[in-house]
Amino acid sequence: MSEIRAKIDSLLQPVAADMDLMRGALKQAIRDDSPAVADMVGHVGSFHGKQLRAALVLLVGRASGRDTGEHPRLAAIVELIHLATLVHDDVLDGAEKRRRVACVNSRWDNQTAILLGDFLYSRAFGLSTELASRLPSRLLAKTTSRLCAGEIEQAAQRYNFEQGQVGYERIAAAKTGSLYSAACELGARYDGQDRYGEDDELGRSMASFGEELGLAFQIIDDCLDVVGEEEVVGKSVGTDVEDGKVTLPVLHVYAASDEATRARIRDIYTEPGVEGRARVLREAIDLEPGLTFARQRAEELVDRAMARVEVLPDSPARTTLEAIGDFVLGRNW
Amino acid sequence: MSEIRAKIDSLLQPVAADMDLMRGALKQAIRDDSPAVADMVGHVGSFHGKQLRAALVLLVGRASGRDTGEHPRLAAIVELIHLATLVHDDVLDGAEKRRRVACVNSRWDNQTAILLGDFLYSRAFGLSTELASRLPSRLLAKTTSRLCAGEIEQAAQRYNFEQGQVGYERIAAAKTGSLYSAACELGARYDGQDRYGEDDELGRSMASFGEELGLAFQIIDDCLDVVGEEEVVGKSVGTDVEDGKVTLPVLHVYAASDEATRARIRDIYTEPGVEGRARVLREAIDLEPGLTFARQRAEELVDRAMARVEVLPDSPARTTLEAIGDFVLGRNW
Repeated sequence: MSEIRAKIDSLLQPVAADMDLMRGALKQAIRDDSPAVADMVGHVGSFHGKQLRAALVLLVGRASGRDTGEHPRLAAIVELIHLATLVHDDVLDGAEKRRRVACVNSRWDNQTAILLGDFLYSRAFGLSTELASRLPSRLLAKTTSRLCAGEIEQAAQRYNFEQGQVGYERIAAAKTGSLYSAACELGARYDGQDRYGEDDELGRSMASFGEELGLAFQIIDDCLDVVGEEEVVGKSVGTDVEDGKVTLPVLHVYAASDEATRARIRDIYTEPGVEGRARVLREAIDLEPGLTFARQRAEELVDRAMARVEVLPDSPARTTLEAIGDFVLGRNW
Repeated sequence: MSEIRAKIDSLLQPVAADMDLMRGALKQAIRDDSPAVADMVGHVGSFHGKQLRAALVLLVGRASGRDTGEHPRLAAIVELIHLATLVHDDVLDGAEKRRRVACVNSRWDNQTAILLGDFLYSRAFGLSTELASRLPSRLLAKTTSRLCAGEIEQAAQRYNFEQGQVGYERIAAAKTGSLYSAACELGARYDGQDRYGEDDELGRSMASFGEELGLAFQIIDDCLDVVGEEEVVGKSVGTDVEDGKVTLPVLHVYAASDEATRARIRDIYTEPGVEGRARVLREAIDLEPGLTFARQRAEELVDRAMARVEVLPDSPARTTLEAIGDFVLGRNW
């Protein structure tokens, strides 16, 4: 894990100074006079993570030659929104581990985890209202609402084995692609003066780049959840099957199966008292065709995203954006 | 209850047309293409409530002669933030009834209630970013963060019988006074051009008016929770004692009691397996002195708030603001 950390750090070298500023802005934004809040927030601050969304704001800004002195704060806002969703996801998933730090939810109770998430959202929006232009507030409010709607839709589609690839991708794009997209769009469009409007071609292209990358990331994440080992992934796995989330690899296998196999899959998801449903699923069903299909789809999305980066002038930041595509696919790591 | 509804409606007569616009703006703001979201949001829309915070935005705007065509949308934003806190509170309290409509939390599960609250917050912020001036976005982000910090602090002070009146009021002001304060401040200060700055005397005075009114409201609410009947109050009561929240009437009685009585109070809050702790508390302990003290404190706060309204020119809206003081105290109802 610390090897990966070192690799990420070396990859982010072109924006290392701005990443430090971003972390400073983030810390500053979540500071509070209340001792109880300060205590919780300190814990979240140590919740380092990959900070990939923040990095994308900075890298896209740099690679497109449009970064400003406000980009680190902008990146901190995006990261804060992501942190808020993580804190609330922990309540939702009942996940017991996340990045091998006890997650907020198990250290405190659900109650404070909900409130802490709300607090982080409010600080993210608050910080956005201090920027020179209103674009980030507007775009990020829309993004957060799309993200929440995606998660609500996902909850409504639990145990739906017939939602199809299109339904699955619409939800995954909303819940994950949206914030990646906003990060990249803001990185390219933010200049403190709203000079680059909604019809800005580079902004639109970078929004699509982020959306494709985020969707690919979610697909790979879903593959890891169904087959990964906790020690390698660094967070709880198997929670999707446990929670009734039918992800792309399973949808694909289900669609291609005969009725007996379908019934078996449904039973593993739903029968009471099954221990370790993801493991049982792996052992009972050949998931390989679904995993291959999902990985190919992720590769296709990353290829499409990479074509959008190619038009940018050659630079260390652009090279890192290309490497992030490989990182998302778990290639060369 | 419908008698109270009629009384509220007649009281809000001076801003009735704007209240209708407010409700229209609110419905518009929470509309979504996702069927699952639309379904949940429809339920929240029927969750009528007193909409007191929205009314305050409009009444203060009208009474101070500073209302604009954007005030109804502003009021909708404040009400949406309140709705979001209610939805999350339902998860926190595990409250089974709220206004005798099944609350979101029991109709769906915790998971979707958390997401729905997040969705409502994001739509509130989103709507605020569409207003002509940035003041509401800025003030409401700060307010929401203070509100969440207050609730986090409250959770940290559970079972603390020594927090004192000052500690209790600081938390109550943060979690409840803050949004009342923002509603009244925005009602007075918002003009779409940021003409009335932070040093605007009327804006500051109306902020204090709201804070005092909100704090009084919270104190009365806490009195009702410990002694009220569910049928009269129209929502679950006794939840504070159940959740370990030591509110002003109890704090007062505790401070004035001998050690044996204190131990009895602590036991009723904490001993495992006690059924209906609030009822047991009422039967075992004479709470009357604490309730009298708390009600007097609420009256003092309302009196102070009313003095701030007196400086406004006489108008139907001002008369309603005065009547709201009585409403908060449960006088003449």
